[in-house]
Amino acid sequence: MELAGYSEEDIIDILLKYVDEPGFGERLGKGDDARDIIPRSQRIIFSIDGYSIESVKLPWRTYSDVGWSIVTSVVSDIVSKGGIPYALMVSIGLPREFSVNELIELYNGMSEACRFYNVRLYGGDTNLSRDPWISIAGIGFTSAAYPPKRDGVKVGDYIIVTGYYGASGVIAVDGIDKAKDIEWVKKYTKRPYADTRLPNILSNYSKVIHASMDVSDGLGYTLYTLAKSSQVLLDLETIPNYYTELNSYCRNNMECIVERIMNGGEEYGVVLAIDSAYINKIKKELETYQIPYRVVGKAIRNTTKKPYILLWGEPLEIKRWDQFRGWTTIG
Amino acid sequence: MELAGYSEEDIIDILLKYVDEPGFGERLGKGDDARDIIPRSQRIIFSIDGYSIESVKLPWRTYSDVGWSIVTSVVSDIVSKGGIPYALMVSIGLPREFSVNELIELYNGMSEACRFYNVRLYGGDTNLSRDPWISIAGIGFTSAAYPPKRDGVKVGDYIIVTGYYGASGVIAVDGIDKAKDIEWVKKYTKRPYADTRLPNILSNYSKVIHASMDVSDGLGYTLYTLAKSSQVLLDLETIPNYYTELNSYCRNNMECIVERIMNGGEEYGVVLAIDSAYINKIKKELETYQIPYRVVGKAIRNTTKKPYILLWGEPLEIKRWDQFRGWTTIG
Repeated sequence: MELAGYSEEDIIDILLKYVDEPGFGERLGKGDDARDIIPRSQRIIFSIDGYSIESVKLPWRTYSDVGWSIVTSVVSDIVSKGGIPYALMVSIGLPREFSVNELIELYNGMSEACRFYNVRLYGGDTNLSRDPWISIAGIGFTSAAYPPKRDGVKVGDYIIVTGYYGASGVIAVDGIDKAKDIEWVKKYTKRPYADTRLPNILSNYSKVIHASMDVSDGLGYTLYTLAKSSQVLLDLETIPNYYTELNSYCRNNMECIVERIMNGGEEYGVVLAIDSAYINKIKKELETYQIPYRVVGKAIRNTTKKPYILLWGEPLEIKRWDQFRGWTTIG
Repeated sequence: MELAGYSEEDIIDILLKYVDEPGFGERLGKGDDARDIIPRSQRIIFSIDGYSIESVKLPWRTYSDVGWSIVTSVVSDIVSKGGIPYALMVSIGLPREFSVNELIELYNGMSEACRFYNVRLYGGDTNLSRDPWISIAGIGFTSAAYPPKRDGVKVGDYIIVTGYYGASGVIAVDGIDKAKDIEWVKKYTKRPYADTRLPNILSNYSKVIHASMDVSDGLGYTLYTLAKSSQVLLDLETIPNYYTELNSYCRNNMECIVERIMNGGEEYGVVLAIDSAYINKIKKELETYQIPYRVVGKAIRNTTKKPYILLWGEPLEIKRWDQFRGWTTIG
């Protein structure tokens, strides 16, 4: 049945089932215009992320996967800044023809993600829109005295990349039509995942983790942004962890592998810049928390401005999916 | 020039000019994936609001007015729960054909509103969408031990309505085509306004202000929602402040006046339910802060469930603009 067959109040009643009751010490409840939250630390982390729903709806994703993926993106933003995610608010715009069952599926996926990440869904609002969209704002808490910025990389820092790469790059580089027949690509891109163990390390070592940024828009773009905004050159001597299936897909051609590792998206690892004196401490912490990572290189002085990234001594071409222009070479 | 003529990075550079630098003690800056905030009180107020941009773009509103109005709606949600608004994050979806000048105008309006309400714009993200939309999340702080809920009205409470009504009701009831020739309607609906003096009272008297809700979706709907969720009957013996121009517009016909007061929207007063023992204290406070208000009636026991509102002893029909169905009678 389409949304148009229901009243807005009916729809809100359906969605309110997904909204959490007040937590400890909180007063405002389900369906109120705002929620109240008791700060759990001396610093709040605040973020927002929006999506055209269709852009997230890969053919092999259900609406439940879409809901999961969008929650993951907000969680990732908070986590990469050292925050432990606490609560989300959702704003959604839907056409009258949108199916109520698909809406319920979407919220089921968000709800599963909220439980998985131990984050509360605190409400939101519904809107009419010809093009379905969703926007999620999140609040997290951190005890970090220095939540890591994106422009904090210093010359001499080690660069660490957490997570696994190369599946969404196949979609980006080779297209959805080809990707939809590749089982491992579908498997790894169905429900992306952000690692909520990371903020424990970021908050304990915030003074020596000089920069951190999540890989929502592709690893190459993240590396480029960190380098450019910090005015350093990233000298990479190795590539991060990637799905081993990529080796046979690329017939062990390294150029093919690198292109797909660098130009993906929604692979929610994090790039960290670590004070070189603390690299062994941070490595040990990552191992303790069982977070997959790779030390990929160092930040060095950039005398020419371009390039921003060297891989095995050669400039790395960085492309980015530009929402208004499509694929664009940026560095 | 259209957005398609710019790269996404160019657009982000334009929008980042509107984003505020970190405040006291904060570390994360412009353009980072999240922002950090030091709590200013023991309780955070968190809210989100979304809009189809076209639905806010009345013919006599510029895009700057649209930006102003959307910021006002989030500020109003926070204020009505006793929060002093602190920071906003904006998520926006635009088609490639959207004009960059209009986008700048929109942000100029948001920026003016942020300065007016003394609230910070802390960033956001941009998206591609055929149907332009905007979603704003807000964080405020309150020292209220009991931020007022919408379902807290108690039998015996006095009902106070702050603000002025009746201009947006002319649009809602008589249509935009008629409204666009009425100067006073255009004047009062161009840039709606939320009163940020109110949270001072709400936080000092939170134990005796049993309920509070802003009038974003029409006064009738707000009264109905408070009554229904609190399971009381609102017995109104007078109507709230309204624009005096409505008298001659309605030729002093009271039915015409009431209909336009009750069925508007974006008239951001607040409806309060006050413990009867404290009504004089609250009235004095409202006068001290120069907040226009009217004590419109009392909450009484509701034995029949329907109706929810009596005005001068007669049941008041409540209509609501249903996003998926259009105008709908709800109570």
